[in-house]
Order: sequence, then C-alpha cells, then structure tokens
Amino acid sequence: MKMKKYIYNFNEGTAEMKDLLGGKGANLAEMSNIGLPVPQGFTITTEACNMYYEKNHKLWDELIGEINIKIKELENKTNKTFDDKENPLVVSVRSGAKFSMPGMMDTILNLGLNDDTVDALAKNSNNERFAYDSYRRFIQMYGNVVMNIDKNKFDEIFDGFKVKTKVESDTELNAETLKDVVKEFKKLYKKETEKEFPENPKEQLLLAIEAVFKSWNTERAVIYRRIHNISDNLGTAVNVQSMVFGNMGDDCGTGVAFTRNPATGEKKLFGEFLINAQGEDVVAGIRTPLDIEILKDVMPEIYRQFAEIADLLENHYKDMQDIEFTIEKGKLFILQTRNGKRTVEAAVRIAVESVGEGKLNEEEALLRVDPSQIMHLLHPTFDKNILKNTKPIAKGLPASPGASSGRIYFSAAEAVIASKRGEQVILVRQETSPEDIEGMVEAKGILTSRGGMTSHAAVVARGMGKCCVAGCEAIKVNENLKHFIVDDKVFNEGDYISLNGSSGNVYEGVIQTLEPELSSQYITLMSWADKIRRLRVRANADTPKDAAKAVELGAEGIGLCRTEHMFFEEDRIAAVREMILSDNVEQRRAALKKILPMQKEDFIGIFKAMGPRPITIRLLDPPLHEFLPKDDESLKELANEMKIDFGKLKIRVEDLKEVNPMLGHRGCRLAISYPEIAEMQTRAIIEAAIYVKKEEGIDVKPEIMIPLVVKPKELTYIKDVVVKIADELIKESDIELKYLYGTMIEIPRACLVADDIAVEAEFFSFGTNDLTQMAYGLSRDDAGKVIEDYLNKKILQFDPFQSIDRKGVGRLMKLAVELGRKQRPDIKLGICGEHGGEPLSVEFCHGLGLDYVSCSPFRVPIARLAAAQAVIKAKGLIKQVQNK
Amino acid sequence: MKMKKYIYNFNEGTAEMKDLLGGKGANLAEMSNIGLPVPQGFTITTEACNMYYEKNHKLWDELIGEINIKIKELENKTNKTFDDKENPLVVSVRSGAKFSMPGMMDTILNLGLNDDTVDALAKNSNNERFAYDSYRRFIQMYGNVVMNIDKNKFDEIFDGFKVKTKVESDTELNAETLKDVVKEFKKLYKKETEKEFPENPKEQLLLAIEAVFKSWNTERAVIYRRIHNISDNLGTAVNVQSMVFGNMGDDCGTGVAFTRNPATGEKKLFGEFLINAQGEDVVAGIRTPLDIEILKDVMPEIYRQFAEIADLLENHYKDMQDIEFTIEKGKLFILQTRNGKRTVEAAVRIAVESVGEGKLNEEEALLRVDPSQIMHLLHPTFDKNILKNTKPIAKGLPASPGASSGRIYFSAAEAVIASKRGEQVILVRQETSPEDIEGMVEAKGILTSRGGMTSHAAVVARGMGKCCVAGCEAIKVNENLKHFIVDDKVFNEGDYISLNGSSGNVYEGVIQTLEPELSSQYITLMSWADKIRRLRVRANADTPKDAAKAVELGAEGIGLCRTEHMFFEEDRIAAVREMILSDNVEQRRAALKKILPMQKEDFIGIFKAMGPRPITIRLLDPPLHEFLPKDDESLKELANEMKIDFGKLKIRVEDLKEVNPMLGHRGCRLAISYPEIAEMQTRAIIEAAIYVKKEEGIDVKPEIMIPLVVKPKELTYIKDVVVKIADELIKESDIELKYLYGTMIEIPRACLVADDIAVEAEFFSFGTNDLTQMAYGLSRDDAGKVIEDYLNKKILQFDPFQSIDRKGVGRLMKLAVELGRKQRPDIKLGICGEHGGEPLSVEFCHGLGLDYVSCSPFRVPIARLAAAQAVIKAKGLIKQVQNK
Repeated sequence: MKMKKYIYNFNEGTAEMKDLLGGKGANLAEMSNIGLPVPQGFTITTEACNMYYEKNHKLWDELIGEINIKIKELENKTNKTFDDKENPLVVSVRSGAKFSMPGMMDTILNLGLNDDTVDALAKNSNNERFAYDSYRRFIQMYGNVVMNIDKNKFDEIFDGFKVKTKVESDTELNAETLKDVVKEFKKLYKKETEKEFPENPKEQLLLAIEAVFKSWNTERAVIYRRIHNISDNLGTAVNVQSMVFGNMGDDCGTGVAFTRNPATGEKKLFGEFLINAQGEDVVAGIRTPLDIEILKDVMPEIYRQFAEIADLLENHYKDMQDIEFTIEKGKLFILQTRNGKRTVEAAVRIAVESVGEGKLNEEEALLRVDPSQIMHLLHPTFDKNILKNTKPIAKGLPASPGASSGRIYFSAAEAVIASKRGEQVILVRQETSPEDIEGMVEAKGILTSRGGMTSHAAVVARGMGKCCVAGCEAIKVNENLKHFIVDDKVFNEGDYISLNGSSGNVYEGVIQTLEPELSSQYITLMSWADKIRRLRVRANADTPKDAAKAVELGAEGIGLCRTEHMFFEEDRIAAVREMILSDNVEQRRAALKKILPMQKEDFIGIFKAMGPRPITIRLLDPPLHEFLPKDDESLKELANEMKIDFGKLKIRVEDLKEVNPMLGHRGCRLAISYPEIAEMQTRAIIEAAIYVKKEEGIDVKPEIMIPLVVKPKELTYIKDVVVKIADELIKESDIELKYLYGTMIEIPRACLVADDIAVEAEFFSFGTNDLTQMAYGLSRDDAGKVIEDYLNKKILQFDPFQSIDRKGVGRLMKLAVELGRKQRPDIKLGICGEHGGEPLSVEFCHGLGLDYVSCSPFRVPIARLAAAQAVIKAKGLIKQVQNK
Repeated sequence: MKMKKYIYNFNEGTAEMKDLLGGKGANLAEMSNIGLPVPQGFTITTEACNMYYEKNHKLWDELIGEINIKIKELENKTNKTFDDKENPLVVSVRSGAKFSMPGMMDTILNLGLNDDTVDALAKNSNNERFAYDSYRRFIQMYGNVVMNIDKNKFDEIFDGFKVKTKVESDTELNAETLKDVVKEFKKLYKKETEKEFPENPKEQLLLAIEAVFKSWNTERAVIYRRIHNISDNLGTAVNVQSMVFGNMGDDCGTGVAFTRNPATGEKKLFGEFLINAQGEDVVAGIRTPLDIEILKDVMPEIYRQFAEIADLLENHYKDMQDIEFTIEKGKLFILQTRNGKRTVEAAVRIAVESVGEGKLNEEEALLRVDPSQIMHLLHPTFDKNILKNTKPIAKGLPASPGASSGRIYFSAAEAVIASKRGEQVILVRQETSPEDIEGMVEAKGILTSRGGMTSHAAVVARGMGKCCVAGCEAIKVNENLKHFIVDDKVFNEGDYISLNGSSGNVYEGVIQTLEPELSSQYITLMSWADKIRRLRVRANADTPKDAAKAVELGAEGIGLCRTEHMFFEEDRIAAVREMILSDNVEQRRAALKKILPMQKEDFIGIFKAMGPRPITIRLLDPPLHEFLPKDDESLKELANEMKIDFGKLKIRVEDLKEVNPMLGHRGCRLAISYPEIAEMQTRAIIEAAIYVKKEEGIDVKPEIMIPLVVKPKELTYIKDVVVKIADELIKESDIELKYLYGTMIEIPRACLVADDIAVEAEFFSFGTNDLTQMAYGLSRDDAGKVIEDYLNKKILQFDPFQSIDRKGVGRLMKLAVELGRKQRPDIKLGICGEHGGEPLSVEFCHGLGLDYVSCSPFRVPIARLAAAQAVIKAKGLIKQVQNK
C-alpha cells in the first residue's frame, strides 16, 4: 500500500492547492514555480493537521519519518545542516490555513539555533550581535508559542536589560548584553517548564509543528473563524522554510506592502518596512515602521526589484496582493503573498478599475466584493460643518474608515459588557491583540496609541468594516487606571469621544453624523449587479422615511410593512389601548374608528414614497399585551388617563399575559378573534391606495399579508373579511385597483400544507425568523446562551438566525415552494425574515427560485450584490476567488 | 340533464345508506323493506341539507317541487290529504343525521293540524280530547322549534290551566280546556312572532324542514359533535312520516326499549312505556314511565309482537337495538331502531356474549367497543366497607355507573366555572336538557330529580361514561335558590355529596373510593385485543407505584420515565436548588453527588416493578427556573435556608428567567451546558440496573433518552458523556448489561434531519405534545382561548393536542420514520406524547409502522384495544360498524 503523502516541497505545489497546502503554502509554491526569490522549504498539509486531531493530538511515526526525509532534502538544497557547528540550517515554522487568519496562528522564527549553532551563525555572518538577537527572539517565541510561557515575562527581562544598559531601542543592545538576555531567557524557560530549553533542532521542530497544529483550535482562532464563517474542519498547514534574516545589519530589512492602497484602492504601492529587523517587528507595532516610499531612497535597486515583483504578482493573481519581503545583505526575498485584505471602499474601487484595466470581466469583478461589507459604505460620516469648527484632540493613522462616537472602555471584557448594556462603545488600547477580538466585535470604533497601518488593530478593523484610528501616539493610554491622557486632559472610562477612521482624527464628545456619499465605482458595480441578478430586492420598511431610504438604496418594493409599529406611536397608543381594553365588539369598533384615519395617513405616506412599486403590508401581528404597560405604577397611570378602574385594568392585563408569547395569541389569531381589527386595517390600506391613485395618479400595488398562518381555513376566514371590505371600497371609488391577498410562511405546519394554503394565498413571504425559532424550538429572546454554548462546543457551525439553516429550515422552505407552485404555478414567492439581507441566505433563496428577497433598507445593496453573485456562482463557470 | 334526487321513499333505501339518509332514515327504510309495521313516509337527504347551506340558507325551487311530489305520493298511499276537512294527512318531521345525536336535533309531531283538520281528526278518532291534545302539542313544538319561542312560556300557560281546573296530570285536562289552551297558545304565537300561526300544512311543512336543517348548526349540536368527534360536514336528513298516535286513548301508548340492558349488557328486554301518550312524554321525563315488563300484563299480544320484532332486529343488525314504538288503537308500529347506546360495561359484555351466541366473530366484537370508553371500567368504586356503615340520603335510578364525590352546582354555567377552578363538581338538576351539555362535560357526576333511564341525563351521561343518578324524586331541587332539600335537610351550592351510579344511591359528603374489579368479559375481550394487535403498548410512569399500576393494566414497558419529577420531591429539592445555584462545576458536582443516591433508589424501585420489560428514561428536561421559587418571599426563605445572599440569589433567578420557556434552555441543552448532570443521571441509571440485576436477577433493559434534540451533534456530544460512564460502570460490575441510547423526536427540525440523527440514536420516541406545539407555533399553556375560538369558528375540526394532526404533525412524523429507518433499518420507534393513548392517534401510529405507543397507565387498555382495532380496520375486510 502506497502511503499517503503529507508533505510537499514548494516546487511540488500550485496556487490552486489551497485546500491541501493552505493559502501561504500554495502561494509559496506558486511563487517558487514562477521563479521568484523564495527561500526554500516545504509544506506539511492540512490533512496532516486533521489526522493529528484524529490521532488524539499526537504526531505519528509515519509523519515524523516524512519530516525527517524532507529536512534531509532541505539540508541538501541549502547546503546547510541541522545542528551543524559550521553551517547550521535555521528555519522558520509558520502556520497557513486555507483562509489567512492574521494574528491568529503562531509563527516561530530562527528554529535550529542552540548554544552551538548560534556561534556558527555569528561566525558565518560575522555579526555576533545579530546571531544572539536571533537566538533570544527564538527562545522567546518558542517559549511563548510552544510552551505557553507568558510573553510579558520575557519582555520584563528584556526591558530590564534596556534599563540597566540605559538604551532606548532594541537595536542598541550589544552582543554581550544579548548573551545575558539569552541566559536569563533560558533560566525563565527552565523555571516555567521545569525542563531545559531543547538544544536539539529536530526536537525543536517537532514540538513547533505540533504547536502550529494546536494553534488551530485556540479559543481566539475558533472565535475568528466563527466571525468569518470559516469551517472548523479545514485544518492548518505548516510551512517550514529556511530562514533569511532581515536583522543582520543595515543592509538588511523586512517589510510588508500592498500592491494598491488597501484603504482607498488607489493604484500605488502601499506599505512599510524596517531596516535591520525581523518580520514580526513590523507587524507587532513595537517599532514604528517607515513608509515603503522611503525604501526608494534607502535601497533604490531593491525598491525597483520589489515594485516589479509586486506588479508581476498582481497580474499573476489578478488581484491586489499583500506581500511580505525580507532583505538579507542586500538581496531581496519574498516570504509570502496573498490577496490583500482591504476596506470595502478599496475593494469596490479595485474591482471596478481592474475591469477598466482589462484584468477582470464584470462578473469576476462582482465576485471580488464581499456583499456583507457593502453596508459599511453606507455608514454615516461626521457632519463637515461641525468638523470645521471642532478641533481634534489628537490625530493617529486612518487605519479603517468610518465615523463613530461612543464611550471609551479600556479592555475587551468591559467593552463587551458595556455594549451588551446597550452602550455605543469605543475600545481604546495601547495596541490590540487577538485576545481583544470579542471586544472589537462589540465596539463601534477602535483607537490604539501604537502600531501602524498593518498592525493587528488596523487589519482586523478593516476586515470587520469597523472605524479605527491606530498608532495615535499623542494619547497616553493607561489600561490599568482606565484612562488616557492627551495634552494633560484625562479621559476616563465611560467618557465620550468620536473617531474619524478616514482622517485619523480623534475628537472629544459626540459629533453629529451625516449620510455618506457613494463613489462612482460603487454606482458602476451596483449597476452591473442589477443587470445580472434574477432575484428582485425589496426592503422591510414601516415608515415613509424608511421607504424613501429603501428606494434610494435600490429597493424595488416593500416586502414587509409592519403595521404594529404605527400602533406604538405616541399619538395613537391611547386609542390602541382603548381598543385592547374594550369589553365588547362595539367598544372595540369605536376605538378602531379613532385609529383608522391615522393608519390611513401612514399608508398614504408610504404609498407616495414607493410609487408604483409593490408593497406588502402585514396585518397586526404581536400579542396585544405588548401594547400595555407591565408594572403597576404605569398601569395606575394608564387607569387614570383612561378613567377606568385600576383593578379591572389589572385583571385584563393579567388575562392577556402569556407563558410563551411567541407561541400565543398573535398573528392571524388576532384577526380571527377580532375580525374588526382586520376590517379597520383593510379599510385604511385600500382607502389610502384609492386616495393616492386618485390624487397622485400613482398605480399603487398593495399586497395584504396575513401572518402566522398554519391552516388554510385561517386564510379563508380572514379573506371573507378583507375581500368584502376591499372590494366594496374599490367599487365605490369607481377606479381600478389591484391588490393581492397572501400570507407569511413562518410556522412549520404552514410549509407542510403549503399546497392547501396556496389555494387561498396569491403570494407567500417566508418569515424565516419565526420559522427558525419554531423549527429549532428555540426563541431568539432566550437563545443567546444556548447558541453561544453550541458554537463553542461546535454543535452549531453557524448561528441559524444569522444565515439560513439549509438542511432544516431550508428543507421546510423547499417543501413549501414545491407545494405552493404545484397548487398555484404563478404564486409570488419572497422572504422577509432578516436572512433576506444575508449573502449566503440570498444565494440559497436564489437557488430555491424565490421571486424576491426583502431586508432592512441598509441591507438592500448587500442583497443586490449577493443576488448577482448567486447568478454568477450558479453558472459554475467562474471559479470563486477565496480572498478570506 | 337529469336532476339530482334529493328525496327517497322509505322503500327506496337500505340500512347501508346512512351517509345519504341519516341513521334514522336508513333504518326506517331497512325496516320497511323487511316487512315491519312502519308508518309510511320519505326521507330528504343529507345532501339536501348541505345544499341548503350552500344556497345561503334557503330552500330552493327544485327541492320544493320534489317535496310536493312526495307529499302527493304519501297522500295517495295513506289515502289521506293535507288540509282535508274529512281525512287529513298528519305527519311527523324528524331529523336524522348519520350518527344519532340524542336530544340534539329537533322533532315536530302532528304537523298538518289546523283549526279545520283538528276537527276532522276529532271526528275520525271519535276523540275530541285527543285531537286537541295533539293540536296543542303541535303548536307548542312548532312555536318552539321553528319560531324559537321559549318553551317555558307555553308551559306556563298550560300549567295555569291545570291550576285553574285543579287537575294534577296532563291527561286529566278535558277537550274544552284543551281548546282554550290552543287559543292561548295561538295568542302567544302571534304575540311572539307578530304573525298568525300558519294554517296551511304545506307552509307548516316547509318551515319545519328548514328548522331541521337549521338545527344541524345550533350551538349545542356543534358542541355535541365536537365532543364526539363527528364532522360538521355530514349534514342531517329529514324524515317526514305519517303520524300514528299513541295518545288516542287507553288502547294506545308509546315506548322505548333496548334489546339488552344498556347499563349492564344483560340479555333481557329493557325499556319503558306510557299508555295514552306521545313519544316525547317518555323521553322528556315529564311523566315517569312504566317498566316494559308491565306491558306484558297490560297488552300481552302487543308485548309478544314487540319482543319478536326486537329479536328480529337484533339479529338483523347483529347489534343491540334501541327501538321506539307506538301503539295506536291496539296496533303496534315501529318508529325507529338504532344500535343502542350503552355503558362500556354493557358494550364489553354484549360484544363478548355475542361471540358466544355466534352472532359476531372476535374481530367484529373488538370493533364494538369504543376504546376511549374502556377507561371508565378502570374507574374507582366506593369502598364497600365504608358504604356498609353509610346511609344514603336518597336513592334514584342507576342511570350511568361509576362512583364520584364532589361539590354540588345547580347550573351548567356554574359547574363549568367551578370545574375550571379545579373543583370536583356534581351537577344537580331537576332534569337536564341539551343546554346543559357543557356542564355535564365538566362534571364528575350528574344527579337529576326527574326522568327515567332513557331521560336526557341518563343517555348523555352513559355516552360520556360519566356517573349519573337520575329520577331521584326524594330530593327537591330548587335551581333558583341553588339548593336541594331531602328529608328537611338543605344542601347548598358547594356542599359535598357522593353518587353511586351503579346503585342509584346518593350520599352526603365525600366517600373513599377503591380500585374497580374487572369483569371476565373485559379480560376475554382484552386477550383477543392482545392476540391481534401488532403495536406494543407501554406506559408513561415516573414512580414504582405508577410502574406497578401500568404492568397491572397490561403495559409492556415504560415509554417515558421523566426524571425531573423525582427532582421535585421534598427530600431532594434542596440539593437540586443547590446544584442550580452553583457558581462553578465543582459546586455543581458536589450538589449532584447528594442527588445521586436518591435518584438511584428511584430507578431501583422502577426497575424492580417493571422486571425485564424495557424502560425508557429521559434525562432532565425542564428549564432550571422551574425548580426555583418565583416570588421574593419564598426566595428570601430559600436564601436563609441555603445561607446565601438574597441579592445574589435574586440575580441568579432573574438570570434564569426566560421570555418563552418552551423555546429556551431546556432538554438536551441542559446536558450540553452542564454535562455533569447527564453524568450523574447516567450513573444513577446504570448503577441501579446493575444492582437490580445482581440482587434480583432481573435482566433490566434501560433505554437512555435525550430530549429536545435538533442536531445530530447534540446526541454525539452527550453520548460521549453517557457511554463513557455507562461502559465504565458495566465493565467494573463484571456483569452483562445492555442499554440503548436514543432520543425524543419532538422538534420539527429533528424530523427533517432524522437520517443524520439515526446515526447516533438507537431509538426514536415521538414527543407529539411538543412537536404539535412547535409545528403549530402554539403553546398549550396559552392555546386555550385560541383553540376554543378556532373550534367554534370551524377553523379547527378537532383539537390537535387531543388527536394527532395527521396532515401537519403526522407528515413530520412520517418523514422522520422514513429517514430514520433508511439510516438504521432496525431503529426502534415509539411515541410517548399524550396522543399515545388516544384511539385515532394509535391507529395513525399503527399505520406509520411504529413499534410501540406509550401513554398514562390508565390509558394502556385504551391503547391495547385501539391497537387491535387498527389491525382489523387496516385489513379493510370488515366494514366498521358506526354505532355513534
């Protein structure tokens, strides 16, 4: 039996092999193949990682054997040998999953160094300082990553030496001091692990590989994957590569650069570098790096080479690249390339300009923008008139655009708590680290005092589409005292500040925001999307203002107009309560009569805003107790206002209480108990439609939607009421008015009897929020802890309230679509649950053959783009570019 | 085009045509055809009734034409003519639906009488008193039934004449007085209706037919159908039959008799008659009728004829008959026969004895007993030792067997209210009427002071299997003052009495009850059922006592042992609360350790009681807040007891609160959050099983059931915990013990992914209570009003929590069965929702191919019989006898 191959040399792979080699490994292979200067090495596959977990978290003999063979080959190619006292092989060990997960996985540099080889390195490089600097870095990284020793304990020792030798920067420490650092690091290592630091490079290597495998399942990696919807089953590859050193002296350096500006999309090299440094120094934000343009002056030939390679790579990958490089003694090496993360502004600009440049066609360009990011383009900006007269308190790097105000918190944990309380939170940190991810998710904006445009905070915030100002050195952050100081002014936890992520400015207090202006590239891209998509896109909107916004954002109708929101408004809640507290149908009718003109006005406003676009109006849905106050104090007030007995009111309120309101007296059950409510609402809708048609000449298209149907007879019963009133009014009006009568499909049983329901319903609109709740037996109000726990324990791969559960809820939908169409071939099918604006769900709805999706106005562009992508993906001709 | 035939002469029909002619019409036709003395007439079909509703509640011309033709034929056959001054045709108009609904539909006798024909009747019969007695009855019935005039208003007039003329009984009123009664009745008619009483017999007839059609949809008819699960779409037929008169003198009479005793099943004519009376007098309980045996002395030849016909009819229909007869001037007429209603005791005895008599085979006999009635055989009786020393306060007729104690109420409305409050109610009435149906449903027993064994109270109570003492004349009931008096002692509303429906005795206060003894016929019948059924029958039982009862009643295992019931017991709730309030897993484990030995004891008791029968044990299911007190007072007490801070306790309780507990943190979600609970429960189960196997040599078969599963991974996660513990314990024990691991299927999503779930689950048990709640989006806690409303408005035909909704919930079950079997062909399938003991649901489960049903212990015999009937019905060879 031929043994499975778990390791590939770089020259054995291609860019297509990301599943097996991870993104980094596949790209290293690709670059090797096209002749770029890549240090030699090999990749241990993701399959090996998964097998490691299957084998109870142990490296197995066959794999170890294969590693030994590959090391031998690497030794031959590099002419260096592990543990060789004269020409030792030194390698980096880096993780690389299919999707790059910045800062999530752990890296070890300089592996292979020990007390012997460090001297060989010193001798060969003729640079003792460099050799010991590399060695101390290795011990620290190894101790931290493999043995879990607190990084700060190393830093304390290191900083202690800086104080003792009175130097400011790391590079000023001389070789002798670094030797002492190494000694102290080793002592620390022994104290913490109760073992000697491993001097054998092979032992170092195996433990490091295992550490990379393990790092796939650290809590922060799991959280990152959850946020980005990445499967837990992919595993990570491990790249072992012979080291090149950027820290051998001033003819050395290291840097990171994008082929275009990742914040704006501008076509211009964008990046940073440091002289005499190893890669981590740039990313970790310990030293503030220099603009890549400066490299042109410092090392013009290297710059020219790099710019050429950058161009070559972008053309090769047909996408903007994020490239890591190292300069060793005046020679350029490329260590990594990947599709660069970018703001959505940049993504749109790059995609559209690439079509202009002939690099992509329109369909390819459409696939290059993540629909869920599009929403950030629509985020407000600060009012420029206010900004004119407002002095910023500080200015940092414009790391991720957007504008937000909020209260400051100095730890991720406190940010999370405050956000759950409902506060708008700005997370303020010296620098962020992967432990801060959850706090960053919750925050409206992020401010750091250290780190550059490629620092952790900057990269992650851009990925999240979240406003971020980084490296704002003017503010002095003290995380322990929970304050920052700027110009002698102290800002304490809970104080308000405002961040402009596009300019880097930081302001005191809250600043008024304005609607954003959309770029011409955005408009072009969306026009391509609209041309290609089949699904119509509607919005959920309950007010003329929301309706107008929806149209502005491209909505082609309203898929869900909730009438109860109108009931809550201050000027009508009294009449609504009077209606609810009525003892009999006459009293109820009297109260409804007061509501009628107001509700009619609402519809007139919405109809005018929507013009001839279809508008689905849902009749009253929530249980009546939602309209009444809960506590005795408010009830007493209400009793006074309404001039009724408190005791009687209290009894009625008790009577309306429900153990499980979600499964109670609501939806169409209300219209069946109190047909006069449906009567009034129908009257308001149809009278408004007639009015708008007569007065404005708009051909209004109302669609009356009955919620929470489980039995066809419910629809029949209410239809008798609705159609009678509607047809009477239309007849009296002497004009033509077409309206549809249909239902929400939001209860499992409705899906099972959808054929019978379609006899009465001219349209179905899937209410996937409730459908998911009922299908799972899990209420969103109560699901928080359960879903959290299930995601952590990997029982759920994703939150079914975020993205449609295709296997369960999706199957019910499919059944309903088939049965509904069988009964009524021209039935109109849509979705108005929140899933309607989530890209994966939109794709699913496209596949189901729905006619439209409906979502909140700000999600309309997401749905438009996702619907276009669904068409392109369904063609299956264009391979989807994974740029996560 | 041939017109649809809506009317059949009696000689055109057969007993098989019940759908079209109704039960009464079909039997009148059958009897005519076999040559019995049946007065001539015709039947208007149930289709005509349905058409009447379709035609907006109007008789249409074609039908009227057909009626006229049939009347003409009847005139020719009888040689009498409508409105003829010399030989007038007089008819009865009676309803007759497919299923007899006693007292529900309205009857009109003596139709055709008017001021002219009454005199002709007087002359022809030579009995003016009889003629006017018939006329006044007609006006009253017509006024009441057709024109809705309050019956009491007629009675008041009539009773006024009795007082005025100083007579006691109706028969003492002479012709002259009756003429005055007629005049007054007509005045009343005019006053109430503002119309003259219609003198034209054809007009009388058409209005009467319409009244019968309308009576199909009176509230009381609708309620009766709902209770008896009769479809609203059947419609009623109308029988028009030439009158024979039992009230022409002392050579006349009328009566009702059963071919066997309907209370005990004894093979002996059982009935009552009255001389010189019309049929209604016997049934309505106005005069107390005579035992049918007395007829032997009074009219020996008529008795002989009747006994012969009764025998013939029973043999003809192969079932006990309920026969109405009238004697007109020494000639016997049969007016109706139908399968007689009977107590379940009688049903069992008749069915089994009929097999002995060679009239039925075992399968036919099994179909003769309504499974849902079987439960009443298991009802307790009064302790005979107590009865020996207790003097009854009165004795009435033993109208419906059983024994019950409760508080007395004097109106149906008050009985309903008290019952909803949770009281045991005895409904006390002078006599009951159809308006009392709802009160009778709620009451534990019924006591009337008037009426015989065939009175309304007696017939309905037997149908409901409810204890009833009728015609208890010693008690003087005053419904207005809400008391009854017996021997000068006053019993007020709310006082306790006890009824023995088998002896007719009434007792003061509450009497201790005992378990019933089961008849040999019952044992025989159930042995036939067990022989024929395929479905196994298990019980839902949580205690050794319930388990023992279940085995006694024939359970073959436990289908659902709820472990939380044990958690609530007084001696362990403290430890349970300690567990819930734990801050960490260590504290939780410590508390669970206290619960372990108690839970183990529970299982030992149950395992011993069940012997080698399989026992399905469900792990903890309810949300944890159910175990904590709700109000501050009790919380403070608890805080004191537990020596914890009240504030902290309060926060924890608030934290556990849920908006929709039904859709919250419960079921397997608990075991996933706190695996240590599942650990403890597994340990208790397996340790108990090992103990019982070792000590008692019983081969215990535990089946561990995980509730509320929606994802296969939930099962996998918990399986890791359960199997680890279980297998460890078994290995340590050194004995063999087999157990199964499976799940409840009670959430819609579980049905949709049942194939994946079956990978982990060795059995499925359908939890149809929750499945129905989720499929309908309707919680049982909150459904009361909705279901009531839906049944009234005919949106629901039946309550889906009573009987499985085959179209919706059933479809989910079918899907789960198919997917489950596909994945694991030998998967064990059962149901443990309350539907498991409901006959129609049992039949459905048989059809689905489940392996067993499980229900409460007292319902086990129902399920056994229903499961046998399901086999017989599925064969389709034996036509089911409809004896409703």
